[in-house]
Amino acid sequence: MSTDEREAERALTEQVVASFANTEDARLRTLMQSLIRHMHAFVREVEPTEAEWMSAIRFLTATGKMCDDLVRQEFILLSDTLGVSMLVDAINHRLATGATDTTVFGPFYIEGMPERAYGENMAFTPGAPALVHGRVLTTTGEPIAGALLDVWQTADNGMYSGQDTAQPHGNLRGRYRTDAEGRYAITTIVPVSYPIPTDGPVGQMLEATGRHPWRPAHLHFMIKAPDYRTLVTHLFDKDDPYLQSDAVFGVKPSLMVAYDERSAEDELARRFGFNGSYREARYDFVLDGSAAS
Amino acid sequence: MSTDEREAERALTEQVVASFANTEDARLRTLMQSLIRHMHAFVREVEPTEAEWMSAIRFLTATGKMCDDLVRQEFILLSDTLGVSMLVDAINHRLATGATDTTVFGPFYIEGMPERAYGENMAFTPGAPALVHGRVLTTTGEPIAGALLDVWQTADNGMYSGQDTAQPHGNLRGRYRTDAEGRYAITTIVPVSYPIPTDGPVGQMLEATGRHPWRPAHLHFMIKAPDYRTLVTHLFDKDDPYLQSDAVFGVKPSLMVAYDERSAEDELARRFGFNGSYREARYDFVLDGSAAS
Repeated sequence: MSTDEREAERALTEQVVASFANTEDARLRTLMQSLIRHMHAFVREVEPTEAEWMSAIRFLTATGKMCDDLVRQEFILLSDTLGVSMLVDAINHRLATGATDTTVFGPFYIEGMPERAYGENMAFTPGAPALVHGRVLTTTGEPIAGALLDVWQTADNGMYSGQDTAQPHGNLRGRYRTDAEGRYAITTIVPVSYPIPTDGPVGQMLEATGRHPWRPAHLHFMIKAPDYRTLVTHLFDKDDPYLQSDAVFGVKPSLMVAYDERSAEDELARRFGFNGSYREARYDFVLDGSAAS
Repeated sequence: MSTDEREAERALTEQVVASFANTEDARLRTLMQSLIRHMHAFVREVEPTEAEWMSAIRFLTATGKMCDDLVRQEFILLSDTLGVSMLVDAINHRLATGATDTTVFGPFYIEGMPERAYGENMAFTPGAPALVHGRVLTTTGEPIAGALLDVWQTADNGMYSGQDTAQPHGNLRGRYRTDAEGRYAITTIVPVSYPIPTDGPVGQMLEATGRHPWRPAHLHFMIKAPDYRTLVTHLFDKDDPYLQSDAVFGVKPSLMVAYDERSAEDELARRFGFNGSYREARYDFVLDGSAAS
């Protein structure tokens, strides 16, 4: 490449950056100008052929087309599998005050799921019975009463209700509230590891790059309480084989729980109505009261 | 941000980069690992809020949804308006050998348009009559016979046929061949400046950033000849007011032509059948024979 050509290519980037100079919203201006510099730096580094550029256009187009209004959000899946979602999550949850770690939201949340009573069963499809319970606390260990836990997980076939229309409405989803002592209890099934959807462009990307699509078994939580920062996180099964290679890079050691084997004879079994043996996972969530969101 | 947090964020990027280590195709591995580093560097620099990240997801989704199978390709439009298309173009057409400069392909090309005779009119909608003619040459000035010039431009309403279904099939599109002396001639109308489509996400981006959507008037060419590198370029009207602020950064000084006023009395008018005054633009294209594509 001649010096002239290199200069012309640099000049192009500066011309594009300058075209955003009149953006009224200063934050948007910063975002766009930074995006241009980083995108152009990437293009300059890898020097894509025109065919590669066209492949990227087709990939992004197919990713948009794969999205529906309900549960399939292929761009979130792409962001997740490129580690961008976890990086955004990390950046937005720095300066921990002892609050529970966060992880990715994922694309499968559905709003307005049924409110469920303390200990109510949310599993209407088969699986290994489980009790997940504990408390929601402040960073100084005080219970938070009336916190709302929005919970979701896949069925044993690895699919979320909504994604798998054969499942009953609200299957393995529900909104639970903590009692006066900050306690919550969820009767459900032990989550299973499952592959993220591979029938779209993201699946093709994983296949082409020799990556597997599996996520370690987990239960999703979004926990809200007035004056506390909303907590979006998972609880992972500590024995899952995919903990070290989560397709979306969401695992943090602090979010692993044991699903311990329990007998139908114990007090909890009687209290929550388990007829046979079951698994018990206990976890206390800690909410950050320093900055509500 | 604590040192621990910074290290955890760096470690995340390295973990994602490492996840692509098993990509069999070495070029794809390079592309993905470079993409991860640049995307993460961008995210780290601007530190998007979760709401900003979600806006980006929605923007990309809407961009994909805006694309159809025919003439609307919103991701190409996005690449064009962010200067990425011109950068890819520049990278792929370095080391010029005296061949004609290239510019963006754009999203409005349609394959299989009618083959037209030397000098045939391709304009079936009103406009200022024009003759565009010249030769296709080698870098040493020899004529190239039988070169195929695929030509397209907008109608006077600023829309391409295909985009504007009210226009007759093949309006302002056609495939012309050079004669034995390498000459081509196109009867058409003088192109007009026009806004790129603003009814989609790209239009919203331009609006939000205070950028106008106008492209200076131009005629598109894709020129092919056996053993020569395909030339994708435009000819711009040298008097257009948007030459300095093309929404897609496609203008190069070497691609500007004059549309000179000519009288119905002259020899060319008689030869090409102009009944009144018309404009004449002359341009000789030079193809690169050093690397066919």
